[in-house]
Amino acid sequence: MGSWVEGADGSGFGLENLPFGVVGRGGGPARPAVRIGEHALILEPLAEAGLLGDLPPGVLAGPALNPFLELGRPAWSATRARVTELLREDSLEREAAAAALVPLSDVEARLPVAIGDYVDFYSSIEHASNVGRIFRPDAEPLLPNWRHLPVGYHGRASSVIVSGTDVRRPKGQLPPPEPGGAPRFGPSERLDIELELGFVTGPGNALGSSIPTGAAREHIFGFVLVNDWSARDIQRWEYVPLGPFLGKSFATSISPWIVPVEALEPHRVAPPAQDPEPLPYLRTDEDWALDIALEIALAPEGGEETVVSRTNARGLYWTAPQQLAHATVNGTNVRPGDLYASGTISGAEPDTRGSLLELSWGGRDPLELSGGAGRTFLEDGDTVVLRGTAGAVSLGEVRGRILPSL
Amino acid sequence: MGSWVEGADGSGFGLENLPFGVVGRGGGPARPAVRIGEHALILEPLAEAGLLGDLPPGVLAGPALNPFLELGRPAWSATRARVTELLREDSLEREAAAAALVPLSDVEARLPVAIGDYVDFYSSIEHASNVGRIFRPDAEPLLPNWRHLPVGYHGRASSVIVSGTDVRRPKGQLPPPEPGGAPRFGPSERLDIELELGFVTGPGNALGSSIPTGAAREHIFGFVLVNDWSARDIQRWEYVPLGPFLGKSFATSISPWIVPVEALEPHRVAPPAQDPEPLPYLRTDEDWALDIALEIALAPEGGEETVVSRTNARGLYWTAPQQLAHATVNGTNVRPGDLYASGTISGAEPDTRGSLLELSWGGRDPLELSGGAGRTFLEDGDTVVLRGTAGAVSLGEVRGRILPSL
Repeated sequence: MGSWVEGADGSGFGLENLPFGVVGRGGGPARPAVRIGEHALILEPLAEAGLLGDLPPGVLAGPALNPFLELGRPAWSATRARVTELLREDSLEREAAAAALVPLSDVEARLPVAIGDYVDFYSSIEHASNVGRIFRPDAEPLLPNWRHLPVGYHGRASSVIVSGTDVRRPKGQLPPPEPGGAPRFGPSERLDIELELGFVTGPGNALGSSIPTGAAREHIFGFVLVNDWSARDIQRWEYVPLGPFLGKSFATSISPWIVPVEALEPHRVAPPAQDPEPLPYLRTDEDWALDIALEIALAPEGGEETVVSRTNARGLYWTAPQQLAHATVNGTNVRPGDLYASGTISGAEPDTRGSLLELSWGGRDPLELSGGAGRTFLEDGDTVVLRGTAGAVSLGEVRGRILPSL
Repeated sequence: MGSWVEGADGSGFGLENLPFGVVGRGGGPARPAVRIGEHALILEPLAEAGLLGDLPPGVLAGPALNPFLELGRPAWSATRARVTELLREDSLEREAAAAALVPLSDVEARLPVAIGDYVDFYSSIEHASNVGRIFRPDAEPLLPNWRHLPVGYHGRASSVIVSGTDVRRPKGQLPPPEPGGAPRFGPSERLDIELELGFVTGPGNALGSSIPTGAAREHIFGFVLVNDWSARDIQRWEYVPLGPFLGKSFATSISPWIVPVEALEPHRVAPPAQDPEPLPYLRTDEDWALDIALEIALAPEGGEETVVSRTNARGLYWTAPQQLAHATVNGTNVRPGDLYASGTISGAEPDTRGSLLELSWGGRDPLELSGGAGRTFLEDGDTVVLRGTAGAVSLGEVRGRILPSL
């Protein structure tokens, strides 16, 4: 059965999806909502009217979803079931729901969660191998630890921004022209993107405990698209020995609508085989690869979009439960609203790679855009759009435009 | 002129200091306070009574100092001046202040701020050189970027804990016994400490802007002692190429009382000369090295303390304004309550090193504790205490005890 909301069925944001986000108008308050078609269903008035079941007061009052995320899966499922009933063709509460519906064109989608910690993994074997080949052409592309653990690091939480926010080209130290020389300073000349999928956490764990792979479903609320903007020149000069810092911390964009795990259940598939078998704490019998088709589109200022890569998240070597089990095996605590991103998602074929670094092979092979322009790395005014779709469920898009350095 | 609070003068927490923190009793609320001697002056009742000047309502209501930090230096200075007047021997409001005073023995000091982002630098040239010599004995100890920028990375904010909180020994993947082999799994066998100094930020900057070295005083509220607990074996296996992750993220302890910049002004001294001269955005004429004497004490379970290292923060190569200017030069945004730690503080002499890794030279030379026990890395039940003093101003201590792995 479909929805009474016009245009919702078949839009990617029908009853199969029902992603959660936060919307606002102008300087007004940010209010939690569920997206249905081209509308946002504002949740707080429905909760106050008792139409969303037994939720604690205020958990959907905004400005972020964190208090709702903290409630956990039983509350998430019950709320999703009630929202489904409200929006179905046979709804008995259609009038009340319609009163809570606003067109997306009347509001902006805001950052849906107050992010506590942001972790970025490196879970695509194709990406890690490509980076190894580009940066260390004479060595084994995969480092010795890569097949034993989901390599990751902490990113910056303050600069996680919502789709549609412009990105200022970062300045910083650029590698010395010759070894042993002094660095140059200026705007990044190798500004890149990374196509990633991220998950947002619900209830956390106490410091000193960990989250086994089998418990992931109780701790993961849903998924977003992530563009992990990267300044390759800044990164290359700074990253040994403590990892990426300013090459990443200037901005990370996410899609505004968090697609719940329940909407993605039909799209869970078997992950790639892992060899060698990982340590017991990383094992799981559950199929947690996600069959999500992904694409990267790039448009120069005033120009048309070109899709420069099409790939799929299902090829990721390390899955979300493995990432979460690894991140917490030392006893660190997850909090509601943490963001864990996959790392760049690249496939085996050249046109399935998830970064310009790989697509242009370190800047050697420029991409041709429709209209004839070439690109190795991003130019000022470029707009990048990442999109994702799992059958009838859309992850929407994450969009960003490059502003020149100040 | 001294304070009427008994025992405050000469205690390290007299009128020269007046550090800010947050205290609570049992499960009760956490309330912002200023430490004076062995007492906490609870601020909210004084603010409500109009005795702290013109503060916006609620900024000292707790549970953390963030709303107060956000106000900025004019409000911090005015509040400090009012607290000084309340606590001076000639105070006309002694009775009101006495009513807001509680003995520290009646309360626990809580984590003083909700930490947004936690960044850890690597700013001691002696420490970076020692680590290079231990891990890469055949290579140049300092990497090519080290003298050009304050190397740093993002740590985990969720597991920053207050002094006195026990630390559970982390489990994780330990390096393979031979190259190319499989990792082992278990409790860390090389659990270490890092003696650091950290600063907590007040007002931040907008995304896309940066904080020049000359503006540091408007953005830095004060300093704490930091113990950046480190599992050297986990770290060694995981850290290439994206930096430390689980080797650090299990716990970072800070001292509970944030010593304001104003209390440290008399202890600002010239930093070491920098060669080569750094890029313009890292230059400053102001003296921002801090003459803070530091020590590391270690006590086995039930045993006496041994001071295993004495050093000074003034030797740090990169200063706080340089760290903050570097961290934001790419346009990332600082928020009130961020924590920026110095990295391990080591001096030139063997007994001035700031980690067991260096003090035991990679585990080769065990330390002897009073009572005759030896230590390379930490054993279960060990308590570590870091202390800091700048003349009459104490930074207090950061204390933690190691619990066995679960």
